[in-house]
Amino acid sequence: MSGTRGARQSYEQLREAARRAAEEGAALLVTPEISIGGYPLLPGVRNEAAGPVDGPQCAEVSAIAREFGIGLVHGWPETDGDALYNSVRLVDGRGDTLAVYRKTHLYGRAERALFTPGDTAVVQASFGGLTVGLLICYDVEFPEIVRAHALAGTELLLVPTGLMRPWEFVARTLVPARAFESQLYVAYANWVGERGGLDFCGHTTVAAPDGTAVHLGADAGLLFADVDPAVVAGARATTTYLEDRRPELYPA
Amino acid sequence: MSGTRGARQSYEQLREAARRAAEEGAALLVTPEISIGGYPLLPGVRNEAAGPVDGPQCAEVSAIAREFGIGLVHGWPETDGDALYNSVRLVDGRGDTLAVYRKTHLYGRAERALFTPGDTAVVQASFGGLTVGLLICYDVEFPEIVRAHALAGTELLLVPTGLMRPWEFVARTLVPARAFESQLYVAYANWVGERGGLDFCGHTTVAAPDGTAVHLGADAGLLFADVDPAVVAGARATTTYLEDRRPELYPA
Repeated sequence: MSGTRGARQSYEQLREAARRAAEEGAALLVTPEISIGGYPLLPGVRNEAAGPVDGPQCAEVSAIAREFGIGLVHGWPETDGDALYNSVRLVDGRGDTLAVYRKTHLYGRAERALFTPGDTAVVQASFGGLTVGLLICYDVEFPEIVRAHALAGTELLLVPTGLMRPWEFVARTLVPARAFESQLYVAYANWVGERGGLDFCGHTTVAAPDGTAVHLGADAGLLFADVDPAVVAGARATTTYLEDRRPELYPA
Repeated sequence: MSGTRGARQSYEQLREAARRAAEEGAALLVTPEISIGGYPLLPGVRNEAAGPVDGPQCAEVSAIAREFGIGLVHGWPETDGDALYNSVRLVDGRGDTLAVYRKTHLYGRAERALFTPGDTAVVQASFGGLTVGLLICYDVEFPEIVRAHALAGTELLLVPTGLMRPWEFVARTLVPARAFESQLYVAYANWVGERGGLDFCGHTTVAAPDGTAVHLGADAGLLFADVDPAVVAGARATTTYLEDRRPELYPA
Protein backbone atom coordinates (compact mmCIF):
# COMPACT_ATOMS: atom_id res chain seq x y z
CA MET A 1 0.00 0.00 0.00
CA SER A 2 1.01 3.60 -0.38
CA GLY A 3 0.45 6.08 2.44
CA THR A 4 -3.05 7.21 3.33
CA ARG A 5 -3.98 10.55 4.88
CA GLY A 6 -6.85 9.69 7.20
CA ALA A 7 -8.97 6.91 8.59
CA ARG A 8 -11.66 7.32 5.91
CA GLN A 9 -9.10 6.93 3.13
CA SER A 10 -7.67 3.93 4.97
CA TYR A 11 -11.01 2.14 4.88
CA GLU A 12 -11.45 2.94 1.18
CA GLN A 13 -7.97 1.67 0.39
CA LEU A 14 -8.48 -1.46 2.49
CA ARG A 15 -11.86 -2.12 0.88
CA GLU A 16 -10.37 -1.88 -2.63
CA ALA A 17 -7.49 -4.20 -1.70
CA ALA A 18 -9.90 -6.68 -0.10
CA ARG A 19 -12.10 -6.65 -3.19
CA ARG A 20 -9.14 -7.38 -5.48
CA ALA A 21 -7.69 -10.04 -3.18
CA ALA A 22 -11.04 -11.80 -2.85
CA GLU A 23 -11.53 -11.71 -6.64
CA GLU A 24 -8.22 -13.56 -7.01
CA GLY A 25 -9.37 -16.16 -4.51
CA ALA A 26 -7.20 -15.12 -1.56
CA ALA A 27 -8.34 -16.36 1.85
CA LEU A 28 -6.40 -13.74 3.81
CA LEU A 29 -5.14 -10.21 3.14
CA VAL A 30 -2.27 -8.81 5.23
CA THR A 31 -1.86 -5.02 5.18
CA PRO A 32 0.99 -2.77 6.43
CA GLU A 33 1.67 -1.40 9.91
CA ILE A 34 -1.10 0.91 11.22
CA SER A 35 -2.99 0.38 7.97
CA ILE A 36 -5.92 2.22 9.56
CA GLY A 37 -4.53 5.74 9.96
CA GLY A 38 -1.18 5.27 8.26
CA TYR A 39 2.43 5.07 9.36
CA PRO A 40 3.79 7.23 10.86
CA LEU A 41 0.68 8.09 12.84
CA LEU A 42 0.36 11.83 12.12
CA PRO A 43 -1.22 14.04 14.81
CA GLY A 44 -4.16 15.06 12.60
CA VAL A 45 -5.13 11.43 12.00
CA ARG A 46 -4.70 10.10 15.49
CA ASN A 47 -8.09 10.98 16.92
CA GLU A 48 -10.13 9.42 14.13
CA ALA A 49 -7.96 6.30 13.74
CA ALA A 50 -7.43 5.41 17.40
CA GLY A 51 -9.92 3.32 19.30
CA PRO A 52 -10.46 0.16 21.33
CA VAL A 53 -10.83 -3.27 19.79
CA ASP A 54 -14.63 -2.98 20.14
CA GLY A 55 -14.67 0.57 18.70
CA PRO A 56 -15.89 1.94 15.38
CA GLN A 57 -12.51 1.61 13.63
CA CYS A 58 -12.39 -2.16 14.05
CA ALA A 59 -16.11 -2.39 13.21
CA GLU A 60 -15.43 -0.71 9.84
CA VAL A 61 -12.74 -3.27 9.07
CA SER A 62 -14.95 -6.16 10.13
CA ALA A 63 -17.63 -4.92 7.75
CA ILE A 64 -15.12 -5.03 4.87
CA ALA A 65 -14.08 -8.58 5.80
CA ARG A 66 -17.74 -9.64 5.86
CA GLU A 67 -18.53 -7.91 2.58
CA PHE A 68 -15.90 -9.91 0.70
CA GLY A 69 -15.78 -13.00 2.90
CA ILE A 70 -12.04 -12.62 3.33
CA GLY A 71 -9.75 -12.71 6.37
CA LEU A 72 -7.91 -9.45 7.11
CA VAL A 73 -4.88 -8.42 9.14
CA HIS A 74 -4.88 -4.70 9.81
CA GLY A 75 -2.94 -2.37 12.03
CA TRP A 76 -4.38 0.51 14.03
CA PRO A 77 -3.62 2.68 17.07
CA GLU A 78 -5.38 0.72 19.80
CA THR A 79 -6.60 2.54 22.89
CA ASP A 80 -7.09 0.81 26.21
CA GLY A 81 -7.86 3.26 29.01
CA ASP A 82 -5.13 5.91 28.83
CA ALA A 83 -2.72 3.66 26.96
CA LEU A 84 -2.10 3.74 23.20
CA TYR A 85 -0.69 0.62 21.51
CA ASN A 86 0.67 -0.03 18.03
CA SER A 87 -1.58 -3.05 17.40
CA VAL A 88 -2.65 -5.49 14.71
CA ARG A 89 -5.83 -7.50 14.54
CA LEU A 90 -6.73 -10.65 12.66
CA VAL A 91 -10.37 -10.97 11.61
CA ASP A 92 -12.00 -13.83 9.75
CA GLY A 93 -14.31 -13.63 6.75
CA ARG A 94 -17.30 -13.08 9.03
CA GLY A 95 -15.59 -10.08 10.59
CA ASP A 96 -14.99 -11.81 13.93
CA THR A 97 -11.83 -10.91 15.84
CA LEU A 98 -9.50 -13.92 16.07
CA ALA A 99 -6.48 -12.22 17.67
CA VAL A 100 -5.04 -8.84 18.65
CA TYR A 101 -1.30 -8.25 19.13
CA ARG A 102 0.42 -5.17 20.59
CA LYS A 103 3.92 -4.40 19.23
CA THR A 104 6.46 -5.46 21.82
CA HIS A 105 9.62 -3.97 20.21
CA LEU A 106 8.93 -0.30 19.57
CA TYR A 107 11.23 1.33 17.03
CA GLY A 108 13.05 4.54 17.79
CA ARG A 109 12.24 7.56 19.91
CA ALA A 110 9.10 8.61 18.05
CA GLU A 111 7.35 5.28 18.63
CA ARG A 112 8.48 5.10 22.23
CA ALA A 113 7.13 8.59 22.86
CA LEU A 114 3.72 7.70 21.42
CA PHE A 115 3.01 4.06 22.25
CA THR A 116 3.05 1.74 25.24
CA PRO A 117 4.91 -1.48 24.37
CA GLY A 118 2.94 -4.71 24.46
CA ASP A 119 3.89 -7.27 27.05
CA THR A 120 2.89 -10.52 25.31
CA ALA A 121 5.34 -11.92 22.79
CA VAL A 122 3.34 -14.76 21.28
CA VAL A 123 -0.24 -14.18 20.10
CA GLN A 124 -1.72 -16.95 17.96
CA ALA A 125 -4.94 -18.02 16.31
CA SER A 126 -6.15 -20.81 14.07
CA PHE A 127 -6.89 -19.73 10.51
CA GLY A 128 -7.52 -21.89 7.47
CA GLY A 129 -6.17 -24.96 9.21
CA LEU A 130 -2.90 -23.24 10.14
CA THR A 131 -1.61 -21.92 13.43
CA VAL A 132 -0.91 -18.28 12.64
CA GLY A 133 0.87 -15.65 14.71
CA LEU A 134 1.08 -11.87 14.66
CA LEU A 135 4.14 -9.58 14.87
CA ILE A 136 4.76 -6.00 13.77
CA CYS A 137 7.72 -4.59 11.81
CA TYR A 138 10.79 -4.25 14.10
CA ASP A 139 9.62 -7.27 16.16
CA VAL A 140 10.49 -9.73 13.39
CA GLU A 141 14.07 -8.49 13.25
CA PHE A 142 14.65 -10.19 16.62
CA PRO A 143 15.27 -13.91 16.12
CA GLU A 144 14.20 -14.63 19.69
CA ILE A 145 10.55 -13.71 19.19
CA VAL A 146 10.23 -15.64 15.93
CA ARG A 147 11.82 -18.64 17.61
CA ALA A 148 9.31 -18.27 20.46
CA HIS A 149 6.53 -18.48 17.87
CA ALA A 150 8.03 -21.57 16.24
CA LEU A 151 8.37 -23.33 19.59
CA ALA A 152 4.75 -22.45 20.34
CA GLY A 153 3.65 -24.05 17.07
CA THR A 154 3.17 -21.06 14.76
CA GLU A 155 3.29 -22.09 11.10
CA LEU A 156 2.57 -18.71 9.48
CA LEU A 157 3.68 -15.37 10.91
CA LEU A 158 1.70 -12.35 9.69
CA VAL A 159 3.81 -9.20 9.92
CA PRO A 160 2.47 -5.76 8.97
CA THR A 161 5.48 -3.47 8.63
CA GLY A 162 6.70 0.04 7.83
CA LEU A 163 10.21 -0.60 6.50
CA MET A 164 12.11 2.45 5.28
CA ARG A 165 14.99 2.96 2.91
CA PRO A 166 17.87 2.07 3.11
CA TRP A 167 16.86 -1.05 5.08
CA GLU A 168 15.80 -3.28 2.17
CA PHE A 169 18.22 -5.81 3.69
CA VAL A 170 15.55 -6.60 6.27
CA ALA A 171 13.01 -7.69 3.66
CA ARG A 172 15.47 -9.36 1.31
CA THR A 173 17.72 -11.18 3.78
CA LEU A 174 16.53 -11.02 7.40
CA VAL A 175 12.92 -12.07 6.75
CA PRO A 176 13.92 -15.09 4.60
CA ALA A 177 16.48 -16.02 7.27
CA ARG A 178 13.76 -15.93 9.96
CA ALA A 179 11.51 -18.23 7.92
CA PHE A 180 14.32 -20.71 7.28
CA GLU A 181 15.90 -20.76 10.74
CA SER A 182 12.58 -21.07 12.61
CA GLN A 183 10.92 -23.22 9.96
CA LEU A 184 7.73 -21.26 9.41
CA TYR A 185 6.24 -18.93 6.79
CA VAL A 186 6.65 -15.18 7.23
CA ALA A 187 4.30 -12.80 5.39
CA TYR A 188 5.79 -9.30 5.59
CA ALA A 189 3.56 -6.52 4.19
CA ASN A 190 5.10 -3.07 3.73
CA TRP A 191 4.16 0.45 2.74
CA VAL A 192 5.48 2.12 -0.42
CA GLY A 193 6.47 5.76 -0.93
CA GLU A 194 6.91 8.86 1.19
CA ARG A 195 4.84 9.92 4.18
CA GLY A 196 5.60 12.14 7.13
CA GLY A 197 9.20 12.59 6.02
CA LEU A 198 9.80 8.82 5.82
CA ASP A 199 10.46 6.84 2.64
CA PHE A 200 8.99 3.34 2.67
CA CYS A 201 10.74 0.79 0.49
CA GLY A 202 8.10 -1.81 -0.39
CA HIS A 203 9.65 -5.25 -0.95
CA THR A 204 6.64 -6.97 0.55
CA THR A 205 7.76 -10.58 0.99
CA VAL A 206 6.37 -14.01 1.74
CA ALA A 207 9.26 -16.24 2.82
CA ALA A 208 8.88 -20.00 3.19
CA PRO A 209 10.58 -22.37 5.64
CA ASP A 210 12.45 -24.11 2.81
CA GLY A 211 14.47 -20.98 1.96
CA THR A 212 12.35 -19.85 -0.97
CA ALA A 213 10.59 -16.46 -1.07
CA VAL A 214 8.38 -14.33 -3.27
CA HIS A 215 8.87 -10.56 -3.26
CA LEU A 216 7.22 -7.48 -4.62
CA GLY A 217 9.61 -4.81 -5.83
CA ALA A 218 9.52 -1.17 -4.79
CA ASP A 219 6.08 -0.56 -6.35
CA ALA A 220 2.74 -0.77 -4.59
CA GLY A 221 0.60 -3.79 -5.34
CA LEU A 222 -0.78 -7.05 -4.02
CA LEU A 223 1.56 -10.01 -3.60
CA PHE A 224 -0.15 -13.40 -3.82
CA ALA A 225 1.41 -16.47 -2.24
CA ASP A 226 0.37 -20.00 -1.39
CA VAL A 227 1.00 -21.30 2.11
CA ASP A 228 1.22 -25.08 2.33
CA PRO A 229 1.39 -26.92 5.68
CA ALA A 230 3.18 -29.77 3.87
CA VAL A 231 6.07 -27.37 3.14
CA VAL A 232 6.32 -26.56 6.85
CA ALA A 233 6.31 -30.25 7.80
CA GLY A 234 8.82 -31.11 5.08
CA ALA A 235 11.20 -28.31 6.06
CA ARG A 236 11.03 -29.29 9.73
CA ALA A 237 11.80 -32.92 8.85
CA THR A 238 14.72 -31.97 6.57
CA THR A 239 16.31 -29.31 8.77
CA THR A 240 15.83 -30.14 12.42
CA TYR A 241 16.73 -26.79 13.98
CA LEU A 242 13.87 -26.90 16.45
CA GLU A 243 15.01 -30.29 17.78
CA ASP A 244 18.74 -29.55 17.61
CA ARG A 245 18.70 -26.36 19.69
CA ARG A 246 20.64 -26.56 22.95
CA PRO A 247 18.80 -24.06 25.13
CA GLU A 248 20.70 -25.22 28.21
CA LEU A 249 23.81 -23.58 26.69
CA TYR A 250 22.28 -20.22 25.79
CA PRO A 251 22.20 -17.40 28.33
CA ALA A 252 18.76 -16.36 29.58
CA MET B 1 40.01 -25.32 0.33
CA SER B 2 39.26 -28.50 -1.55
CA GLY B 3 39.20 -31.86 0.24
CA THR B 4 42.44 -33.38 1.50
CA ARG B 5 43.12 -37.09 1.91
CA GLY B 6 45.32 -37.28 5.00
CA ALA B 7 46.91 -35.26 7.77
CA ARG B 8 50.19 -34.80 5.86
CA GLN B 9 48.36 -33.34 2.87
CA SER B 10 46.39 -31.14 5.26
CA TYR B 11 49.59 -29.57 6.63
CA GLU B 12 50.94 -29.02 3.12
CA GLN B 13 47.71 -27.40 2.02
CA LEU B 14 47.54 -25.26 5.16
CA ARG B 15 51.18 -24.22 4.75
CA GLU B 16 50.60 -23.13 1.15
CA ALA B 17 47.48 -21.16 2.11
CA ALA B 18 49.31 -19.53 5.04
CA ARG B 19 52.19 -18.57 2.76
CA ARG B 20 49.87 -16.93 0.25
CA ALA B 21 47.78 -15.20 2.93
CA ALA B 22 50.89 -13.83 4.67
CA GLU B 23 52.29 -12.58 1.35
CA GLU B 24 49.11 -10.58 0.87
CA GLY B 25 49.48 -9.08 4.34
CA ALA B 26 46.69 -11.01 6.11
CA ALA B 27 46.93 -11.12 9.90
CA LEU B 28 44.69 -14.18 10.25
CA LEU B 29 43.77 -17.17 8.06
CA VAL B 30 40.53 -19.07 8.76
CA THR B 31 40.33 -22.58 7.25
CA PRO B 32 37.37 -24.98 6.88
CA GLU B 33 35.91 -27.47 9.36
CA ILE B 34 38.39 -30.23 10.38
CA SER B 35 40.98 -28.66 8.11
CA ILE B 36 43.53 -31.11 9.58
CA GLY B 37 42.23 -34.45 8.34
CA GLY B 38 39.37 -33.25 6.16
CA TYR B 39 35.60 -33.27 6.36
CA PRO B 40 34.02 -35.74 6.61
CA LEU B 41 36.57 -37.43 8.83
CA LEU B 42 37.21 -40.67 6.92
CA PRO B 43 38.18 -43.77 8.94
CA GLY B 44 41.60 -44.10 7.28
CA VAL B 45 42.55 -40.54 8.30
CA ARG B 46 41.22 -40.50 11.81
CA ASN B 47 44.19 -42.00 13.61
CA GLU B 48 46.78 -39.66 12.15
CA ALA B 49 44.64 -36.49 12.36
CA ALA B 50 43.20 -36.94 15.87
CA GLY B 51 45.07 -35.79 18.94
CA PRO B 52 44.94 -33.60 22.02
CA VAL B 53 45.53 -29.86 21.96
CA ASP B 54 49.13 -30.45 23.09
CA GLY B 55 49.67 -33.25 20.55
CA PRO B 56 51.75 -33.40 17.37
CA GLN B 57 48.88 -32.31 15.06
CA CYS B 58 48.49 -28.93 16.74
CA ALA B 59 52.28 -28.60 16.99
CA GLU B 60 52.52 -28.94 13.19
CA VAL B 61 49.99 -26.15 12.76
CA SER B 62 51.75 -23.93 15.28
CA ALA B 63 54.99 -24.37 13.34
CA ILE B 64 53.26 -23.12 10.19
CA ALA B 65 51.85 -20.08 12.05
CA ARG B 66 55.35 -19.27 13.36
CA GLU B 67 57.00 -19.77 9.99
CA PHE B 68 54.81 -17.11 8.37
CA GLY B 69 54.04 -15.00 11.43
CA ILE B 70 50.29 -15.32 10.77
CA GLY B 71 47.34 -16.22 12.99
CA LEU B 72 45.52 -19.42 12.04
CA VAL B 73 42.15 -20.96 12.77
CA HIS B 74 42.13 -24.68 12.01
CA GLY B 75 39.81 -27.57 12.74
CA TRP B 76 40.86 -31.03 13.85
CA PRO B 77 39.47 -34.08 15.63
CA GLU B 78 40.43 -33.33 19.21
CA THR B 79 40.94 -36.20 21.63
CA ASP B 80 40.52 -35.80 25.38
CA GLY B 81 40.66 -39.11 27.21
CA ASP B 82 38.21 -41.38 25.45
CA ALA B 83 36.22 -38.50 23.96
CA LEU B 84 36.56 -37.20 20.40
CA TYR B 85 35.46 -33.62 19.65
CA ASN B 86 34.96 -31.70 16.42
CA SER B 87 37.15 -28.77 17.48
CA VAL B 88 38.74 -25.60 16.19
CA ARG B 89 41.80 -23.81 17.55
CA LEU B 90 42.99 -20.23 17.17
CA VAL B 91 46.76 -19.75 17.25
CA ASP B 92 48.66 -16.49 16.99
CA GLY B 93 51.64 -15.72 14.76
CA ARG B 94 54.00 -17.18 17.36
CA GLY B 95 52.11 -20.47 17.26
CA ASP B 96 50.63 -20.02 20.73
CA THR B 97 47.13 -21.39 21.38
CA LEU B 98 44.69 -18.55 22.09
CA ALA B 99 41.45 -20.56 22.20
CA VAL B 100 39.96 -23.99 21.53
CA TYR B 101 36.25 -24.53 20.85
CA ARG B 102 34.36 -27.84 20.64
CA LYS B 103 31.35 -27.90 18.30
CA THR B 104 28.20 -27.72 20.39
CA HIS B 105 25.60 -28.38 17.65
CA LEU B 106 26.58 -31.62 15.91
CA TYR B 107 25.04 -32.11 12.48
CA GLY B 108 23.22 -35.30 11.57
CA ARG B 109 23.63 -38.91 12.60
CA ALA B 110 27.17 -39.38 11.31
CA GLU B 111 28.57 -36.56 13.44
CA ARG B 112 26.61 -37.62 16.50
CA ALA B 113 27.91 -41.18 16.15
CA LEU B 114 31.53 -39.98 15.98
CA PHE B 115 31.85 -36.92 18.20
CA THR B 116 30.98 -35.83 21.71
CA PRO B 117 29.25 -32.42 21.63
CA GLY B 118 31.01 -29.52 23.35
CA ASP B 119 29.34 -28.02 26.39
CA THR B 120 30.60 -24.42 26.22
CA ALA B 121 28.75 -22.10 23.85
CA VAL B 122 30.94 -19.00 23.97
CA VAL B 123 34.72 -19.29 23.59
CA GLN B 124 36.54 -16.01 23.01
CA ALA B 125 40.02 -14.57 22.70
CA SER B 126 41.62 -11.24 21.94
CA PHE B 127 43.27 -11.03 18.53
CA GLY B 128 44.52 -7.94 16.72
CA GLY B 129 42.64 -5.64 19.07
CA LEU B 130 39.33 -7.41 18.50
CA THR B 131 37.32 -9.75 20.68
CA VAL B 132 37.00 -12.82 18.49
CA GLY B 133 34.88 -15.94 18.99
CA LEU B 134 34.86 -19.44 17.53
CA LEU B 135 31.96 -21.50 16.16
CA ILE B 136 31.78 -24.43 13.74
CA CYS B 137 29.46 -24.88 10.74
CA TYR B 138 25.94 -25.87 11.95
CA ASP B 139 26.44 -23.86 15.17
CA VAL B 140 26.16 -20.54 13.34
CA GLU B 141 22.77 -21.47 11.90
CA PHE B 142 21.32 -21.06 15.42
CA PRO B 143 20.68 -17.39 16.15
CA GLU B 144 20.82 -18.06 19.89
CA ILE B 145 24.51 -18.89 20.00
CA VAL B 146 25.54 -15.95 17.83
CA ARG B 147 23.46 -13.67 20.05
CA ALA B 148 25.22 -15.15 23.08
CA HIS B 149 28.51 -14.16 21.48
CA ALA B 150 27.32 -10.63 20.76
CA LEU B 151 26.09 -10.18 24.33
CA ALA B 152 29.47 -11.43 25.58
CA GLY B 153 31.26 -8.82 23.45
CA THR B 154 32.40 -10.80 20.41
CA GLU B 155 33.14 -8.52 17.44
CA LEU B 156 34.38 -11.12 14.95
CA LEU B 157 33.11 -14.70 14.78
CA LEU B 158 35.45 -17.17 13.08
CA VAL B 159 33.50 -20.10 11.65
CA PRO B 160 35.18 -23.03 9.88
CA THR B 161 32.45 -24.90 8.01
CA GLY B 162 31.62 -27.84 5.76
CA LEU B 163 28.51 -26.60 3.93
CA MET B 164 27.08 -28.91 1.27
CA ARG B 165 24.90 -28.40 -1.73
CA PRO B 166 22.04 -27.50 -1.94
CA TRP B 167 22.40 -25.36 1.21
CA GLU B 168 24.03 -22.29 -0.36
CA PHE B 169 21.21 -20.34 1.33
CA VAL B 170 23.12 -20.67 4.59
CA ALA B 171 26.18 -18.84 3.23
CA ARG B 172 24.28 -16.33 1.12
CA THR B 173 21.42 -15.41 3.46
CA LEU B 174 21.71 -16.90 6.95
CA VAL B 175 25.31 -15.85 7.61
CA PRO B 176 24.75 -12.22 6.52
CA ALA B 177 21.57 -12.21 8.64
CA ARG B 178 23.56 -13.38 11.70
CA ALA B 179 26.12 -10.60 11.22
CA PHE B 180 23.44 -7.93 10.85
CA GLU B 181 21.07 -9.06 13.59
CA SER B 182 23.80 -9.58 16.20
CA GLN B 183 25.97 -6.69 14.99
CA LEU B 184 29.29 -8.48 14.54
CA TYR B 185 31.47 -9.78 11.72
CA VAL B 186 31.13 -13.43 10.68
CA ALA B 187 33.97 -15.09 8.73
CA TYR B 188 32.64 -18.36 7.30
CA ALA B 189 35.26 -20.56 5.58
CA ASN B 190 34.05 -23.55 3.56
CA TRP B 191 35.34 -26.52 1.62
CA VAL B 192 34.90 -26.88 -2.14
CA GLY B 193 34.25 -30.03 -4.15
CA GLU B 194 33.41 -33.67 -3.45
CA ARG B 195 34.75 -35.83 -0.63
CA GLY B 196 33.38 -38.93 1.05
CA GLY B 197 30.18 -38.75 -0.98
CA LEU B 198 29.49 -35.14 0.05
CA ASP B 199 29.54 -32.13 -2.28
CA PHE B 200 30.81 -28.95 -0.63
CA CYS B 201 29.53 -25.71 -2.10
CA GLY B 202 32.20 -23.10 -1.33
CA HIS B 203 30.67 -19.62 -0.98
CA THR B 204 33.15 -18.68 1.72
CA THR B 205 31.80 -15.43 3.14
CA VAL B 206 32.80 -12.54 5.37
CA ALA B 207 29.64 -10.73 6.45
CA ALA B 208 29.74 -7.37 8.22
CA PRO B 209 27.38 -5.97 10.87
CA ASP B 210 26.20 -3.24 8.47
CA GLY B 211 24.58 -5.75 6.11
CA THR B 212 27.41 -5.85 3.57
CA ALA B 213 29.29 -9.05 2.70
CA VAL B 214 32.06 -10.36 0.48
CA HIS B 215 31.74 -13.86 -0.97
CA LEU B 216 33.82 -16.33 -2.91
CA GLY B 217 31.92 -18.28 -5.52
CA ALA B 218 31.90 -22.06 -5.86
CA ASP B 219 35.65 -22.24 -6.67
CA ALA B 220 38.45 -22.83 -4.17
CA GLY B 221 40.58 -19.83 -3.25
CA LEU B 222 41.42 -17.34 -0.56
CA LEU B 223 38.93 -14.61 0.32
CA PHE B 224 40.52 -11.46 1.72
CA ALA B 225 38.47 -9.08 3.87
CA ASP B 226 39.12 -6.14 6.16
CA VAL B 227 37.57 -6.15 9.62
CA ASP B 228 37.12 -2.70 11.13
CA PRO B 229 36.07 -2.17 14.77
CA ALA B 230 34.63 1.20 13.73
CA VAL B 231 32.13 -0.62 11.50
CA VAL B 232 31.02 -2.69 14.50
CA ALA B 233 30.65 0.40 16.66
CA GLY B 234 28.82 2.29 13.91
CA ALA B 235 26.40 -0.57 13.22
CA ARG B 236 25.62 -0.95 16.93
CA ALA B 237 24.94 2.77 17.24
CA THR B 238 22.69 2.84 14.14
CA THR B 239 20.74 -0.35 14.79
CA THR B 240 20.27 -0.92 18.49
CA TYR B 241 19.19 -4.55 18.48
CA LEU B 242 21.36 -5.47 21.44
CA GLU B 243 19.76 -2.73 23.57
CA ASP B 244 16.22 -3.19 22.25
CA ARG B 245 15.90 -6.91 22.99
CA ARG B 246 13.21 -7.80 25.52
CA PRO B 247 14.59 -11.00 27.06
CA GLU B 248 11.96 -10.93 29.80
CA LEU B 249 9.39 -11.77 27.07
CA TYR B 250 11.24 -14.66 25.42
CA PRO B 251 10.82 -18.21 26.74
CA ALA B 252 13.92 -19.77 28.34
